[in-house]
Amino acid sequence: MSSNRPPRLGIVGLGNIGHHHATRLVEQDADLVGGVDIAEPARERFEAEFGVTAYDDATDLYDVADAVIVTTPNRFHEEYAVSALDAGLDVLLEKPLAHSLESAERIVAAAKESEGFCMVGFNNRFSNPVEIIKHAQREDRFGDVNHIEANYVRRRGVPGRGSWFTNKEVAGGGSLIDIGVHAIDLALYFLDFPELAEVTGTTRSQFGGRDDYAFVEMWGNDTGPEGFNVDDSASAFIRCANGTTISLEVAWAANRPTNDEFFIRGTEAGAHFDRASQDLTFYGTGTGGANHLTDTDIDTRTTDTHQAEQAMFVDAVRAGEAPGRNTIDEGLAVQRVIDAIYRSSESGNAVRLTDE
Amino acid sequence: MSSNRPPRLGIVGLGNIGHHHATRLVEQDADLVGGVDIAEPARERFEAEFGVTAYDDATDLYDVADAVIVTTPNRFHEEYAVSALDAGLDVLLEKPLAHSLESAERIVAAAKESEGFCMVGFNNRFSNPVEIIKHAQREDRFGDVNHIEANYVRRRGVPGRGSWFTNKEVAGGGSLIDIGVHAIDLALYFLDFPELAEVTGTTRSQFGGRDDYAFVEMWGNDTGPEGFNVDDSASAFIRCANGTTISLEVAWAANRPTNDEFFIRGTEAGAHFDRASQDLTFYGTGTGGANHLTDTDIDTRTTDTHQAEQAMFVDAVRAGEAPGRNTIDEGLAVQRVIDAIYRSSESGNAVRLTDE
Repeated sequence: MSSNRPPRLGIVGLGNIGHHHATRLVEQDADLVGGVDIAEPARERFEAEFGVTAYDDATDLYDVADAVIVTTPNRFHEEYAVSALDAGLDVLLEKPLAHSLESAERIVAAAKESEGFCMVGFNNRFSNPVEIIKHAQREDRFGDVNHIEANYVRRRGVPGRGSWFTNKEVAGGGSLIDIGVHAIDLALYFLDFPELAEVTGTTRSQFGGRDDYAFVEMWGNDTGPEGFNVDDSASAFIRCANGTTISLEVAWAANRPTNDEFFIRGTEAGAHFDRASQDLTFYGTGTGGANHLTDTDIDTRTTDTHQAEQAMFVDAVRAGEAPGRNTIDEGLAVQRVIDAIYRSSESGNAVRLTDE
Repeated sequence: MSSNRPPRLGIVGLGNIGHHHATRLVEQDADLVGGVDIAEPARERFEAEFGVTAYDDATDLYDVADAVIVTTPNRFHEEYAVSALDAGLDVLLEKPLAHSLESAERIVAAAKESEGFCMVGFNNRFSNPVEIIKHAQREDRFGDVNHIEANYVRRRGVPGRGSWFTNKEVAGGGSLIDIGVHAIDLALYFLDFPELAEVTGTTRSQFGGRDDYAFVEMWGNDTGPEGFNVDDSASAFIRCANGTTISLEVAWAANRPTNDEFFIRGTEAGAHFDRASQDLTFYGTGTGGANHLTDTDIDTRTTDTHQAEQAMFVDAVRAGEAPGRNTIDEGLAVQRVIDAIYRSSESGNAVRLTDE
C-alpha cells in the first residue's frame, strides 16, 4: 500500500505467538482486521478477545487485509507466506524462514515475484543492546569485527515435549532451528551478512528423548519422550568468505549453566552482551596518558522487541517498501547456515557454501 | 634405569622455564647433576645457584645423567630430545612437543627407537580440578562426555615482543602453539584422546604487530612490533571420529575479557573449571524426590603442577618405564591439531585428519 490510513493487518496462526503478536498489534498505528487458524477453538478465543473475525480459509483474510503476520508452526510458513505474497500482501514471517532450506527458497522466490514484501521476525535485533552495538559499529568503534562468539544455551529448556516444537516433521528440527536461529541471525547481523564459506558442526539429541529427562520448568505440557524426535543441542563453527568466523553454542538442554552471551570481537574494541539479562559492556584499550584497558558498562532499556519489530513492519507496509533489515535474503542466509549445520552433523564433514 | 638410588637429572635449556624446573627439581627425590645452555651467562647463573656444572655441549651432560628435562625454545626441542633419547636417557620435554609437526614426528620416531622414554610437559593436567574431573570420569559420573568448550584467552598477554615466543622461526607459531597447546591437550585428555577426524579454524595476528598495541603487563621485555611475526589468537572446532567435538578459543590478545574456562559436557552431568582461578563446579540433575538440578561446587587445593609433573617423571625414570599419561603419542596428537589449525587457517578450509 502507500497511503495515510492505518494499514489493515491480520494474524495467520492463532497459537501462543500469534496471540503475543495480536496483543501488541492493537497498540500499533494499524488496524487488526482478522485472523486465520485451522483450529476452531483458537479462532473462537481470538474473536472473543480481539473482536474481529477469525477465518479458517486464509484467502478470506487476504481479501480484507494489506498485510499479515504469519505465526504458524514452521512447516506451514511456506503455505501461508507464499499465498499471502501471491495475493500481493506484505508479510511479517516469524522465524525461522521455514522448516527446510528448500521451503525457504520457495518463499524467497514467491517474494521476488510478489508486489508485497516479506520481512523476517528476528526480533532479537530490536533489543537495546543490539541496536547500541550496531550503532557503535557504524561509528567504527570496533574496527574490523572478525570473530563472534554466539551462545544461546539453556541448561534445561526443551519446549513442551509433544508440541510441534519437538516434532521434526513440523518444526524441521529442534534447538538449532528454534533458538539457534536467533544466535546465527545476530552473529551474521553483527558481521553485516558476509558471504558464507564453510560451516561445520554437530547437533545432538541427548535429553529430550529420555524417560529420566530432569527439568524444573518446561515451556509447554510434557507428554513424555515419545513426542520428541529432534536435536536438543548444537555446536558449530562458521567461516565467512572474508575470513570472519563465528563460534556457535546452542542448547535446549546441556549439563552446563545457561549461557546467552555474545562476544563481538573487533580489531579496535569488542562488545559483550547477554541476550537474556541485557548486560552490555564494551572492551577497549588506550595508549593516551598511559597504556590502559577500558571496560565500559552500558545501562540499557528493556524494550518489547516484538513491538519494535511490528512498528518497523507497519511503517514499511504503509510506505509500500520492504525494510532494509530483517530482509528475506538475510532470512535465507540464516536458513542456509542451519541447513549446513544439520548436513554437517549428518555427514561428519564440513560443508562448503561458497561454491554451492 | 631401574634401581633404588635417586635418578640423576639434568636440565637442557637454562632460561626462565629451565630455572623454574631446576628450583623444583631440587625438592624431588632426584639428584640435579647439571645443565646445558649455549649461552655462557645462563650457564654461570645456573652453576652459581645450583652448584652443579652447566655444559655447552649436551653430550657432556648425557654422560653423567639418567634423564633430562628439555626446556629450550621450541625450535631446539628436536635437537636435544633426539640426542638425549639416542643416548638412552629419559626425557621430560616441555610443551609443545616441537615447533612443527614434522619435527614432532622425528622426536616420536627417536623415542620409539630409544631405550629411554619421552614424557611431555603438559603440566596443567596435574592441577587439582583436572585430577578431580578425571576421577569423576573414571567413576562414570558424567556419562558420555561428548563436547568440550576449551578456552585459554588472555585479553592482553602477548609475551615479550622480541623474545623467541613471538618469533615464528623459533617458536613455530604464537598464541596457538604457546598456550593453545594446553587447551587442546586438556580437551583431548578429557575425551581420552579419541581418533581425530576434522579440524577447522582460524589464527589471527591483530595486536602484537601494532605500534599502538596497548598492554598493562607483558611477560618479558617489549622491543616493539618488529619482534612479532606470529598469531595472537586462534578459534577452532575439532571433530573426533567418534562424534565428540571441541570448541576452542585461544588468545594472547583479544578485545574481550580473559577466559580460562573449560566446560566438560556429558550425557549425565557436566563440569566447569577455570584454569586460572581453579574454580570447579559439577552440574547434574536428579529425578529423586522431585525433578531438580544440582550444582556442586568443589573446593580444590592449589598445587604446583610442574612439581607434580616432575614427581611422576622421576618415579618413571626410577622404574624405567614411561608413565601412562603425558605420553609422546598424546603430544603428537596435540601437535597434529595445532598443525591442522594452522593449515586450515592458511587454506580457509577444514582439514581432514582421519584419512591422512
